[in-house]
Amino acid sequence: MKATSIDTMKKHNFSAGPAVLPRTVIEQAAKATLNFNDSGLSILEMSHRGKDLVEVLENAMSLCKELLGLDDDYEVMFLTGGASSQFYMTAMNFLDENGKACIVDTGTWSSKAIKEIKRFGPLETLASSKDKNYSYIPKGYQVPSDASFLHITSNNTIYGTQHHEWPDTKVPLICDMSSDIFSRPIDKNKYGVIYAGAQKNMGPAGTTLVIVRKDMLGKVKREIPTMLDYNTHIQKKSAFNTWPVLPIYVSMLTMQWVKENGGVEGMQVRNQEKADLLYQELDSNPLFKGVAAKEDRSLMNITFLINDESLTEEFLRVTSEQGVSGIKGHRSVGGFRASTYNALEKQSVEVLVDIMKSFANKYG
Amino acid sequence: MKATSIDTMKKHNFSAGPAVLPRTVIEQAAKATLNFNDSGLSILEMSHRGKDLVEVLENAMSLCKELLGLDDDYEVMFLTGGASSQFYMTAMNFLDENGKACIVDTGTWSSKAIKEIKRFGPLETLASSKDKNYSYIPKGYQVPSDASFLHITSNNTIYGTQHHEWPDTKVPLICDMSSDIFSRPIDKNKYGVIYAGAQKNMGPAGTTLVIVRKDMLGKVKREIPTMLDYNTHIQKKSAFNTWPVLPIYVSMLTMQWVKENGGVEGMQVRNQEKADLLYQELDSNPLFKGVAAKEDRSLMNITFLINDESLTEEFLRVTSEQGVSGIKGHRSVGGFRASTYNALEKQSVEVLVDIMKSFANKYG
Repeated sequence: MKATSIDTMKKHNFSAGPAVLPRTVIEQAAKATLNFNDSGLSILEMSHRGKDLVEVLENAMSLCKELLGLDDDYEVMFLTGGASSQFYMTAMNFLDENGKACIVDTGTWSSKAIKEIKRFGPLETLASSKDKNYSYIPKGYQVPSDASFLHITSNNTIYGTQHHEWPDTKVPLICDMSSDIFSRPIDKNKYGVIYAGAQKNMGPAGTTLVIVRKDMLGKVKREIPTMLDYNTHIQKKSAFNTWPVLPIYVSMLTMQWVKENGGVEGMQVRNQEKADLLYQELDSNPLFKGVAAKEDRSLMNITFLINDESLTEEFLRVTSEQGVSGIKGHRSVGGFRASTYNALEKQSVEVLVDIMKSFANKYG
Repeated sequence: MKATSIDTMKKHNFSAGPAVLPRTVIEQAAKATLNFNDSGLSILEMSHRGKDLVEVLENAMSLCKELLGLDDDYEVMFLTGGASSQFYMTAMNFLDENGKACIVDTGTWSSKAIKEIKRFGPLETLASSKDKNYSYIPKGYQVPSDASFLHITSNNTIYGTQHHEWPDTKVPLICDMSSDIFSRPIDKNKYGVIYAGAQKNMGPAGTTLVIVRKDMLGKVKREIPTMLDYNTHIQKKSAFNTWPVLPIYVSMLTMQWVKENGGVEGMQVRNQEKADLLYQELDSNPLFKGVAAKEDRSLMNITFLINDESLTEEFLRVTSEQGVSGIKGHRSVGGFRASTYNALEKQSVEVLVDIMKSFANKYG
């Protein structure tokens, strides 16, 4: 029998998303694909209205509330269409033609949000870090107190920056947490809406988490197609139509794994350890340098450059030989990006750091 | 070790959707979930921009065109949001405020489409079978030649009726084929748009197939959010944002299975055989009777009643003992519904028919 890579070498998956999932979750997903809950059927071929799958969906919703410490003021939905759909759905549901929305521009995702929000009403960009290729998080801007919401991208996957502090305002935040949901505790009182594509910290591609504080609802008058109206999905508990069963099931398993591993507080410790390891190496290794401003460094996506660009391919080759994948940088930044989401093990960062050290010994 | 049901009894999965998938497809899906293409990684944790997954998406698109005999006049997209999202997206993209759309009302799904289409422009309901609880397909209506499109639900999952003939018109059909896509050959020239939620004949829940004939595009002036504009997804070949990897992968495997089993022509023969078996039993067994008008009977969803309603629970119990699942009728019709999608084996229908015969011997 042909030996598979999985037998012969441990993989270190630094992919920016879809991203590494806990191995136990993957094994449970494979088992459910063959035979779900000893039903003799695959989870892929079962009615989403059956008792067992209704339980999966309900568990996913309650785990989400538990992990984030949300009370009954918040509604949780599992939808589809990614964060890209939430850019316009949030505006469609919460911004009146005569209203006022605000945004902070911290990169590609906020720029895309700006384009979509503007279609529905006035939008003011309060601050932007475009002047330095989005390598920092703007601070010190004023939020107009009459704004309906302030849109913020919590973590910037491409540029490797992350909000570690938040504007001091009572205006509700609409926060795109696609790439750092469940990675750290949140202060729920700040948020009117939290949304996140699943495929980084929550699960596989194919579902989108949307959390809405109830007092955000019912303030906009425009006519909204049934499927684009949050009220539809709240009333039907995310089962207005057939929900993406496998993506939500695997998200539920991943949230269970987070819970069993110390919750979001445990994840924060774990993520800080991994990030410290790699950032310390970046700050001491003469061959490499970090991209993001130190105070805004992301614990999820660590972007870095190599001083001698001609060594780029060789570094990718050597890391690949050690089972490291997904560290090629995004074209907007270049260099490398190590995504260190919840499920990435510390050992994987250690392997990468060791390679960086050897590389510096050889070429430094 | 505890024996699982799958070891001890063959299952006969008549679920209306998500529905039975070929066992070989399920086994491949489970394998890819553990270790995709010997990469050592799960298909759930890999970048959708990687070479192997880009190939999956491209294969899915080309298999779809091949199976349906579509040429380059048609664009194929894999989106999300289900048929429920296509009700409004088709109108948003193809119906002007001053235009004219038409629809034939054949049940729950067309009624929902009516509600959403109306938001975007004038809609005329040309015919309806509501008068007889949607037990037949309306015929003989005239289609206004200046209509932008005529919306038709090809197969009615709930009521068990199916279009076997089509209105004689040059107006392009927008056809919801959610429950009979890939079950029979189609005359591509009739359709401006075909759409289908995956979770009946195409794959698991989590992706939606949309096929658009190019000449339908560019005729409507309204502003459309990026994610709701078909042009976005056509230009980006369904990869504008992260696509639902596992649902599209399993859909690709299922389309491959259709191809290897005689294509849509092979499926039609297979489906006709299964349906003939069950309808013949319904027409001869004194205990049961079919719901749909004979000439409009669906080859996908076979709805039937039991003459003595007090035997309903007993019939469900006996069938369940034989491994039959998913045959409880929808509440709008009552009785039973046997969904006989592509992947259901003839043997499963034989088992059901045998139980019906024994049941008639005992209670008839």
